[in-house]
Amino acid sequence: MRTITLEELKELIESKRYGAIKRALSEEYPVDIAEMLEELPFEWVVPIFRLLPKELGADTFIEMGSDLQERLIGGFSDKELRLLLNEMYVDDTVDLIEEMPANVVKRILATAHPEMRKDINEILAYPKDSAGSVMTTEYIALRSFMTVVEAFEKIRRVGTNSETMYTCYVTNKKKKLIGVITVKDLLLADPEKTVGDLMETNIICAHTDENKEEVSNRIREYGLLALPVVDKDGLLVGIVTVDDAFDIISQESEEDFSKMAATAPTDLPYTKTSIFALFKARFPWLLLLTLSATFTGAIISSFEEKLAACAVLIGFIPMLMNSGGNSGSQASVAVIRGLSLGDLELKDAFKVLFKEIAVGAMCGLLLGLCNALKMLLLDRLILGNVEVNLWVILVVSLTLALTVMMAKAVGCLLPFGAKLIRLDPAVMAAPVISTLVDALSLLIYFGFAVNFLNL
Amino acid sequence: MRTITLEELKELIESKRYGAIKRALSEEYPVDIAEMLEELPFEWVVPIFRLLPKELGADTFIEMGSDLQERLIGGFSDKELRLLLNEMYVDDTVDLIEEMPANVVKRILATAHPEMRKDINEILAYPKDSAGSVMTTEYIALRSFMTVVEAFEKIRRVGTNSETMYTCYVTNKKKKLIGVITVKDLLLADPEKTVGDLMETNIICAHTDENKEEVSNRIREYGLLALPVVDKDGLLVGIVTVDDAFDIISQESEEDFSKMAATAPTDLPYTKTSIFALFKARFPWLLLLTLSATFTGAIISSFEEKLAACAVLIGFIPMLMNSGGNSGSQASVAVIRGLSLGDLELKDAFKVLFKEIAVGAMCGLLLGLCNALKMLLLDRLILGNVEVNLWVILVVSLTLALTVMMAKAVGCLLPFGAKLIRLDPAVMAAPVISTLVDALSLLIYFGFAVNFLNL
Repeated sequence: MRTITLEELKELIESKRYGAIKRALSEEYPVDIAEMLEELPFEWVVPIFRLLPKELGADTFIEMGSDLQERLIGGFSDKELRLLLNEMYVDDTVDLIEEMPANVVKRILATAHPEMRKDINEILAYPKDSAGSVMTTEYIALRSFMTVVEAFEKIRRVGTNSETMYTCYVTNKKKKLIGVITVKDLLLADPEKTVGDLMETNIICAHTDENKEEVSNRIREYGLLALPVVDKDGLLVGIVTVDDAFDIISQESEEDFSKMAATAPTDLPYTKTSIFALFKARFPWLLLLTLSATFTGAIISSFEEKLAACAVLIGFIPMLMNSGGNSGSQASVAVIRGLSLGDLELKDAFKVLFKEIAVGAMCGLLLGLCNALKMLLLDRLILGNVEVNLWVILVVSLTLALTVMMAKAVGCLLPFGAKLIRLDPAVMAAPVISTLVDALSLLIYFGFAVNFLNL
Repeated sequence: MRTITLEELKELIESKRYGAIKRALSEEYPVDIAEMLEELPFEWVVPIFRLLPKELGADTFIEMGSDLQERLIGGFSDKELRLLLNEMYVDDTVDLIEEMPANVVKRILATAHPEMRKDINEILAYPKDSAGSVMTTEYIALRSFMTVVEAFEKIRRVGTNSETMYTCYVTNKKKKLIGVITVKDLLLADPEKTVGDLMETNIICAHTDENKEEVSNRIREYGLLALPVVDKDGLLVGIVTVDDAFDIISQESEEDFSKMAATAPTDLPYTKTSIFALFKARFPWLLLLTLSATFTGAIISSFEEKLAACAVLIGFIPMLMNSGGNSGSQASVAVIRGLSLGDLELKDAFKVLFKEIAVGAMCGLLLGLCNALKMLLLDRLILGNVEVNLWVILVVSLTLALTVMMAKAVGCLLPFGAKLIRLDPAVMAAPVISTLVDALSLLIYFGFAVNFLNL
């Protein structure tokens, strides 16, 4: 919990009580300090940042937004930047590099220690969104012949520079991963035993090119604190820790939520997002969706005279389009989440299509039947609308059944299609599905109307 | 990774090689064993389960679906049930109780050790979805006068029965939480130092009645392995661990996704959900949404003759309804997620309404302008549709602007309304918002049409 408020900090700065600031901030958590620095005028940020102890400074730096990070780096001397990079973990440095413009990246790489530069370049070479691209290379490796006492010696020696010290990895001399051992196992064991006696050899691991969400979910499913990442030869190259996995899954979910609501993702929680930022995130999608309705408008226009002649049909247009839209989004959300979480892959497209057509047929037929009954009982008998005759009921109900089935097929296939052409399935979904489903449902409707009602 | 396949396990069972089964399963992870047991005929499950070592059995049990858990408990003797409960953590037992029918709950409570029963009842007494209801009471408590050596002695003694041993909690004699210390701190410290010298006193904690998602997000934000839960007097009553927090957030997100796509949540990933289960989860919502379109249908019907007279207006109905629906869902998804993640509370409703009306006004006016230009250039000039005169353009564009603003207001208020009357904001959202926004947008449209076009 924060021990100093933003106002108190501002007062200390204004009265130039740097000793007190240093003491106060040393008590705070990095994420809280970063949040306060984001709120301060920039000319204060560099001097305040310089007051932080090195490690706390690095931990605070990685919690900042990328704008502040960039400005701060601009204010650093090369020596300061080097000291900062020395304190940062490799995966955090990679995250930073991915957010910075080219000139800053160049400066970071030029300034980093050669060994770190090598690690950074290795991680940057893995495909985007792969386990390799999010792992860190700072883990504790033990050998199976070490005793418990020797293992603790190594853990004490290298522990401070590792992202986690509680799970250690046992490798052979070729660096092949042969076991996993936890500090808990070591603490509870007889000190004379060796790591090889105690280690778990049934290892839950990930390959460098696996999808990062899939790997993060594996960490969740098995309740792990960290997961080793191996290359195609089984050599240990890095680890993914539970805190990073938790962040990856949260971020992915929030991005999918934004995209499905046809909004560009915003970095900040709702309460901290400005009105203009919300406008910018939402308007382009609304414009796209509004303009894309030109197609449905054109279809209706071309049918305008016939609709005017049989006006009762107009009233069912919203119901048919909504039912289609809802069916489609049920299918597309299921597929988008399946793809995001690694439950579905491109090769599953046909299996999914079959399943959705089956579900669509069941939903569509039953819904068509319910609708026919409703039109007969409510519209015709209770409300006495004589225009609602049996042929109209047939046209509307058949359209409903077919639209639901069609919408499920379109809704499940489009995310796969987007993935195939390397677009984001979630972004594609809302505008394209609604346009396509709306247009198709109208064509079905008018097709049936022309045939059955002799329009 | 699994070392035995389901087929191999079945073969071993059929040839009654129980020793081999026991050895094979001892190598597996609980979640994998649970998955295999779910696939086996039930008459095999009890005998196989009895082969598992006690602790592995308990860990496997908590990974099973609630149906299998219930049947398994039905097959247990009281003694077997007691042994199982003794191996389970309190929070897992509470989860189990919350899923079981009353008669099974009674049996579990009657069978549990009196001390565990007390803990269970205490946790069950906290409000649903509160930190108190998801915490566990099995943590390691240290005293500040203990030396590092004494602390390790206690950790070794009680560590196996704690959900996590890596973060320990320092309490005074009244059980008030005064500090937190990690095994890492202890391992790296001089053995002569005391816990009081080393502990962190700026504690990130939660109160028993805080929302569980909010608390889980705090764990993520600060990158913690566990978070202490205190009562109103600051006494330590339990902890929430990172694996539970990760599960809570994932589950909440998936439930929100399902509800926003107007689907009942399903427990299993898409690939494992049967066609009939998908049908059951989706059909009721589709039916509700289809029937609720009766209102929009009725509004259009009552305006049928006038629409037939000015048929050009029909073509813009889908565009107006879609734009309203999309604007509304942008606002409602933002608010629903804000409420789910604890970023928003009931008392923020007016602030949010103000923000959404501002965003809605900006989006609506600009969208109306774009639409007017599009109708003028495309529909009137390029396509030469003479029916699209300036008054029609005015009616459609004004309706669009007002609909977008109205939809944002409705979309942001309804989730708050749902929360106020203790309904789930996410479930309410899709059907009620779309029905309300559709109906209102039509009323606005026809209202303008009657006034400006003299219909």
